[in-house]
Parts: sequence; C-alpha cells; structure tokens
Amino acid sequence: MESPLRLGVIGIGAMGMAVARNALDRGITVAVRDIRPEADREAAAAGATVCASPADVGCASDVIVVLVVDRHQVDAVLFGDDGVVRGMAPGGIVVVSSTIEPAFAESVGPRLAAAGLHHLDGAVSGGPARARDGTMSMMASGADAPFARAEPLLRQLATKLFRVGTRSGDGARAKMLNNLLAGVNLSAAAEALTLGERLGLDPHAMLAVIRASSGDSWMIGDRMPHALAGDFETRAAVDILKKDLGIVTGAARANDYPTPLADAALGVFEATSRMGHGAEDDSAVLKFYRSR
Amino acid sequence: MESPLRLGVIGIGAMGMAVARNALDRGITVAVRDIRPEADREAAAAGATVCASPADVGCASDVIVVLVVDRHQVDAVLFGDDGVVRGMAPGGIVVVSSTIEPAFAESVGPRLAAAGLHHLDGAVSGGPARARDGTMSMMASGADAPFARAEPLLRQLATKLFRVGTRSGDGARAKMLNNLLAGVNLSAAAEALTLGERLGLDPHAMLAVIRASSGDSWMIGDRMPHALAGDFETRAAVDILKKDLGIVTGAARANDYPTPLADAALGVFEATSRMGHGAEDDSAVLKFYRSR
Repeated sequence: MESPLRLGVIGIGAMGMAVARNALDRGITVAVRDIRPEADREAAAAGATVCASPADVGCASDVIVVLVVDRHQVDAVLFGDDGVVRGMAPGGIVVVSSTIEPAFAESVGPRLAAAGLHHLDGAVSGGPARARDGTMSMMASGADAPFARAEPLLRQLATKLFRVGTRSGDGARAKMLNNLLAGVNLSAAAEALTLGERLGLDPHAMLAVIRASSGDSWMIGDRMPHALAGDFETRAAVDILKKDLGIVTGAARANDYPTPLADAALGVFEATSRMGHGAEDDSAVLKFYRSR
Repeated sequence: MESPLRLGVIGIGAMGMAVARNALDRGITVAVRDIRPEADREAAAAGATVCASPADVGCASDVIVVLVVDRHQVDAVLFGDDGVVRGMAPGGIVVVSSTIEPAFAESVGPRLAAAGLHHLDGAVSGGPARARDGTMSMMASGADAPFARAEPLLRQLATKLFRVGTRSGDGARAKMLNNLLAGVNLSAAAEALTLGERLGLDPHAMLAVIRASSGDSWMIGDRMPHALAGDFETRAAVDILKKDLGIVTGAARANDYPTPLADAALGVFEATSRMGHGAEDDSAVLKFYRSR
C-alpha cells in the first residue's frame, strides 16, 4: 500500500487556512507557505510545517493546493524564483484552486509538465466555513492518472468534488460560470428587495416569501439576511465579484458570445465600487440600488 | 361554531383545477366556473358544483379564489354582467390569485368594498403540482378581519401562506418581485450553461456543479434538467414570463427606479419570443443563446 499523500497548501488566507486546518484535523501531513509571517505562525500553531519557499513546500508534498489571490501570484509561486517547479519531485500534482482566467489555467498544464509535474484545476466554492469542515465544492479537471491518485485526498478537502472535464482550464471555466450566476443572482436579489422597499413592502417579509417560491437562489439566502440587518462585514468583497464578472464577460466577448445578464450585473458591481463600497461585502450592491 | 367555509374557484385552468381538486380531497365544498365547457365537465366529475356564472359562484361561496388569466378577465368575472358582485352575499371574501399589475390589484379592494365584499390579494407560486397537493406558496395581503376568517381555509390550499402586507396590491407586488427573480435567474441559468457549451464543457456536468455551489437557484434546478434533455413542453410559457417581466419593468419605470437585471432578462425573453418560441416552455430561452 502506498504511504499517505502529503499535502501542501500555498496561500493561507481565509480559504487556505481553513483547508489546512481541516486536513490537519484528519491526520494529513500539511506543509504551508504564505508571504505573511502572521499567517505562517498561525498555521504552525495548528500543526502545519511552515516552509521557507514554495519550492520547499514542493519538496515536502505529493499534492499541492494553490490558494493565492490571482494569476500573478499563481505564476510566481509555481514558476518564479524558489517556485514549486524548483522543489517538487517529478510526478507531483499541483491543484490550482485560485480563481483565475481559463486561458491562463490552460497554460499552466504544459508548463508544469515541462518540470515533470501534473496539473489539476481545482476551483473551489462555498467559503471558509465549508472549507474548514471539508464540505466545500471543488470543480476539478485534468488527466485521468493524476486525478485518480489525488482524488481520495481531495475528497477529504471537498466532499462535493466534481470532475468537470479532462482539459486544463475546465475547472476554471466551471468556476467562471458559477461566478456568473452568483453575481447575477445576487444583483437581482438586491434589485428585487430594494424595489420592494420603494413600493412600501417589508423586505424581511419579502425575503421569507421569495425563499419559499420560484425566485429563490443560494445567493439570496446566503447574503440577504445579514445585509438586510445592516451587516456588511466583508465575507467576499464587491471588488472580488466585480473582477470575477469581468473575467466572464471578457471570455464571452473573446468568443463573440452574448451575456446580457452578466453585463448588467457587472454594471451594478462597478457602480457599487465607484460609490466607494468596493472593499465591503458583496451584498453592498444593496447600497447602489438604495441610493437611486 | 361557525359552519365550514364554502370555496369558490373561478378560472379552472391548470392551476384552478388543481386548487379545486385539492380542496375537494380535503372535504371542502367547492363551486366553480370556467368559460370552457370541458373544464366545467372535468370539475363536475371531480365533485365540484358547476355554476352558470361568476355571480352564481358568489352565491354558493363564502370565499372565492380567482385564477383567471389576466386583469381583463379578473375585471369581467368580478364586476361584469353576472359578475361576482351581483351574487355574493355581503361579507364574502374574494381572493385574487391571478398575476396582475399591482396598481390594478390596488383598485379591486374599494370596488369590492362598494358591494360589501372583502378583497384579499392571494398571488400564488409553485405550479400545478404543488397546487394539487396544497403545498404551493400564496402571497396574501389585505385587512385583518377577512384575512383571519379566510386563513384556515387558505392554509389548506397553500401550506406556505405568507401575509406580505395589509394593503390591497401588496400580494401582487410580492408576486411581481418573485417574478423578477424567476425571470432573471432563469435567463442567467441559460446564459451560463450555453456559454459553457460554447467553451466545450458538458452542460449536464455543469448543472450538477452549479447546483452544489453558490450559483444555484430554484429556477435552474426546476427548468434546466428537462431543457438540457431537449424537452421544451410548456409548463409555463415564454410569453407569460415575458409579460410578467414587462409588469416589473413598467412598475419600476413608473417609480423612476433602475432594474438593469430585469431589463436584461426581459430583452432575452422578447428575443426568444421574436424567434417564434413564445408559446414554448420558458426554458426555451436556451434557444436564444444557442442561436448566437
């Protein structure tokens, strides 16, 4: 029997830390690296091995989950000085879970292959709470052999593990389409509830009705209860979903494909950001409508 | 103890017939009226009393649920020759469940009051299957006394009974806002899945991923499984949701309120209808996107 796979987590922000803690709870060996010393200290206290560089994480891991912020950071931690490719033994598997452009995700596979490493897309959804208990969803894609090898480990991190394709980039594409719906459904929730306020309806009563009716969505149920209570503490920022919607509309335009709903939602997020709410919770799109 | 309330149902299309059958199953006395003789025959076979006119339904009922198609029919069955106001005893309660413009719903209350009758808004959601087993939602509004009197009966028709306000029109407003979300979430579902098709993703795999993620909505789960299977048999037509979205955007414009998401969804439904799919299932918005 093969010895248990060792996990590396690069980028231990809210999501990465939750993934690492969940893995440690399950008895998995975890090596981490973040550029922020306080994050590294927190991970060490939780039982992770803190490495000096992404290359060292590579050296200490069989499967690495990358959860840094954007494609520039993904590029740096994989291919930069002291990047993963400089330390990971051939046959290692790199799961890129950061939200990145599909075209960039597509380019990662061949570049890792040149170093003898396997690439899996592993975009995630569900937020830190579900990452912490291992019930988040993961949209994975990649070749059969590395997927089969990593699957038992990935299922401990994400009970809702979906193999959406065999191509590098398909996981990123799936995440992009989910983001389209999250952004549209959230904007529409704010549009409906605030129009109701304007018409004299109680938004709390409206929310209860909609949740029991055909207008229900995951986003209205997750975001509107705290937003209607005036709590806009940031779980996911306006500017993050604005960026994600920009990736969608950019990919659609590049394929000459119409996305009128995503375009409209992007406009709402841009306007909310211009009003100065870009760093607030994405439910602050309510404030755009209420200001009209 | 007061004797059980007698129910009248005017307009026994798919929804009205389901409501009548559910009531009959529960031992409620039901009087009905439809302009189509075959519908009246079907209701008679199920055990309802078929009346010759809406006035006669009024005469035979304590609470009437109106489920005709639009405001013109509501106006005719309530206030026309042989309308409900000519037959119903003072104190009777008229629940208008047809989807109508809020401003028209608002006008119904005073006109019924002039005949000694009470008006409740009672917009419904959930479709014929949930009407048949009494688990649909109803968005009710109106004065306290008639609501309290009708409530036990209404709860047998709609376990998810919500009192959204005390004003005539609030039920219609709530339904309108639910329709906004249903229309937007459905258009967005089609937009995301067909963009995925264009990008080479399997739409069935995409649907499974999204249903487990933050992009999920009631509409994507209800409509897309049969639409992706190529089944566009009409449950609710493109032209119905197009009309409903037009009511929303009209009410928003009248209040100088922005609804960019609803506007975009209306555009998708209008384009789908112009392509000749207006009488098909509303999930045929897929065909608009696939034609691009």
